[in-house]
Amino acid sequence: MRIAPTTNPDLAAALTAAINNKTKPLGSLGALERLASRLGLIQDTVTPTIEKPAILVFAGDHGVVAEGVSAYPQDVTWQMVENFLAQGAAINVFARQNNIDLHVVDAGVNHDFGARPGLVDRKIANGTRNFALEPAMTQAQCATALEHGAALAADLPGNVVGFGEMGIGNTTAAAALMYKLTGIPVAECVGAGTGLSPEGVLRKQRVIEAAAGRHAGVDAPLAVLATFGGFEIAMMAGAMLKAAALRKVLLIDGFIVTSALLVAARIEPAILDYCVFAHCSDESGHRRMLDALGAEPLLQLNLRLGEGTGAALALPLLHAATNFLNEMATFESASVNEKSA
Amino acid sequence: MRIAPTTNPDLAAALTAAINNKTKPLGSLGALERLASRLGLIQDTVTPTIEKPAILVFAGDHGVVAEGVSAYPQDVTWQMVENFLAQGAAINVFARQNNIDLHVVDAGVNHDFGARPGLVDRKIANGTRNFALEPAMTQAQCATALEHGAALAADLPGNVVGFGEMGIGNTTAAAALMYKLTGIPVAECVGAGTGLSPEGVLRKQRVIEAAAGRHAGVDAPLAVLATFGGFEIAMMAGAMLKAAALRKVLLIDGFIVTSALLVAARIEPAILDYCVFAHCSDESGHRRMLDALGAEPLLQLNLRLGEGTGAALALPLLHAATNFLNEMATFESASVNEKSA
Repeated sequence: MRIAPTTNPDLAAALTAAINNKTKPLGSLGALERLASRLGLIQDTVTPTIEKPAILVFAGDHGVVAEGVSAYPQDVTWQMVENFLAQGAAINVFARQNNIDLHVVDAGVNHDFGARPGLVDRKIANGTRNFALEPAMTQAQCATALEHGAALAADLPGNVVGFGEMGIGNTTAAAALMYKLTGIPVAECVGAGTGLSPEGVLRKQRVIEAAAGRHAGVDAPLAVLATFGGFEIAMMAGAMLKAAALRKVLLIDGFIVTSALLVAARIEPAILDYCVFAHCSDESGHRRMLDALGAEPLLQLNLRLGEGTGAALALPLLHAATNFLNEMATFESASVNEKSA
Repeated sequence: MRIAPTTNPDLAAALTAAINNKTKPLGSLGALERLASRLGLIQDTVTPTIEKPAILVFAGDHGVVAEGVSAYPQDVTWQMVENFLAQGAAINVFARQNNIDLHVVDAGVNHDFGARPGLVDRKIANGTRNFALEPAMTQAQCATALEHGAALAADLPGNVVGFGEMGIGNTTAAAALMYKLTGIPVAECVGAGTGLSPEGVLRKQRVIEAAAGRHAGVDAPLAVLATFGGFEIAMMAGAMLKAAALRKVLLIDGFIVTSALLVAARIEPAILDYCVFAHCSDESGHRRMLDALGAEPLLQLNLRLGEGTGAALALPLLHAATNFLNEMATFESASVNEKSA
């Protein structure tokens, strides 16, 4: 799976010229102008469009919850999956509002859903193992998760894929991935997740530090993913890699989704060319994780809900970027004078 | 025109309870939760809605352009109004995308448009006078502008009104209003507007400082508005006051729109309860102006285009706030466990 950089100086210059000819002061659409250029480069055109946007929400459970690292019981993972299927969660509301096709994937929830309409069953196992004691998953499980993710991304008809997740305990897995892949101290990677007390955050930090010591020789990206990750994170990373290879726009949500991208970017650095960063989460490590990727998030709304909610909320800005580029008049077409001073 | 504060402790508590019962970690929708509460208080309900949102774009010219304070020639004001009528401007694109009813008002453009379908003619005069030399308008003109604005706001069928503007030179007027109404030094009120050089910004600062000296005794809000403002700013202030009195949501755009609100808030402080601040502009004084009002802007996208574009781009977040409040399941209805730790 090779991902080509979007670098294309001629196209970049043509996009800049098209943007600068629109009837507005130079640069005055700020982040939307940078976004329009990025979308054009990804789609290899000066007239990018948003077609059939989708969000893949991957759910999985985490053995590390046995260490007391989450404010909510593990059952909340499957209960929230049921809530997704019943259209009652935040991501359902925002996806509906913004005409986003939502796909809910059981990547490894510790619950037997049976055959359920609307639920994509790609369960690897009933949750990962506790990485405080042993690797979260085998390399074979990790490879299967990546393959399932890739296949799901390949099946999407649209050109924009957002990513979301549900998994009690997964901010602990994501913080461990962040530490292992960026070297940022664990204390700066951990946060309150769904609402831990300061003591709980400290416990989470200690659990990750101890596990990092136990698995000290693990450094290769896929080994790190298998050792500390989750099935939802691995499947998401596989979907991201495939989506970028297919030149789709990747709409990146919050802390856990970005941790999956960290893994993917260590495997294929050019994947970052295909990413649009929806928001900066209030989960405390997210800002530093975004900085480590050189990412410019579109929204800062103190969100920390997960599920892909930030991605869903940011989609109208992608429409705005393509719409201004495709629909605005130019100085010439509108007979408006250009800058005089 | 009396504006009642939205203060209502019982309703505020009911809104908080409704938000906290939704299936999500406590507080995890961040700014959207604060927005949902504000919309509920404005509409006096725990189920606020967005109905027939509109944006009023007021256009006017400024005599102070004779001092060389703008990067574009004055003709761009009427040319951009023509562009609005031809659907070619950024505000047309974003209003269309987000289903916003757009009203373009000639408050005092220095151009004879004749009778034009789609243009609301409330012209006070062909531009203001040069406030470097004399008051921008008479008190009678200012009063007429306020009345026209109020009547336009009263005619809107919806419950959300966004504000936008077009007027070469109007960042100079807005910066002067900011200085007079907040006492923040002129050097921190002025910015590059549509693209002034640093020398141009300094010239703008000197023009305002000299004019403030010339009109030294002018301190009452309406006198400040008449002396330094613009017809589009005055008409906008009138529309804001009326819209808040009618308990509509005021969607505040960038630097010039916020300067109109500064005037309105000095007349009726409770108007601030009805405001949603769409974005923080890149025009350098806007952040301090927002801080002076205790405002929390929704978007930070480095926009500095005006026209109400920030307001149009923020509207989907208002929909998101009402939608999550009205459509999400509760922990009880979805049978999801609440926080355990």
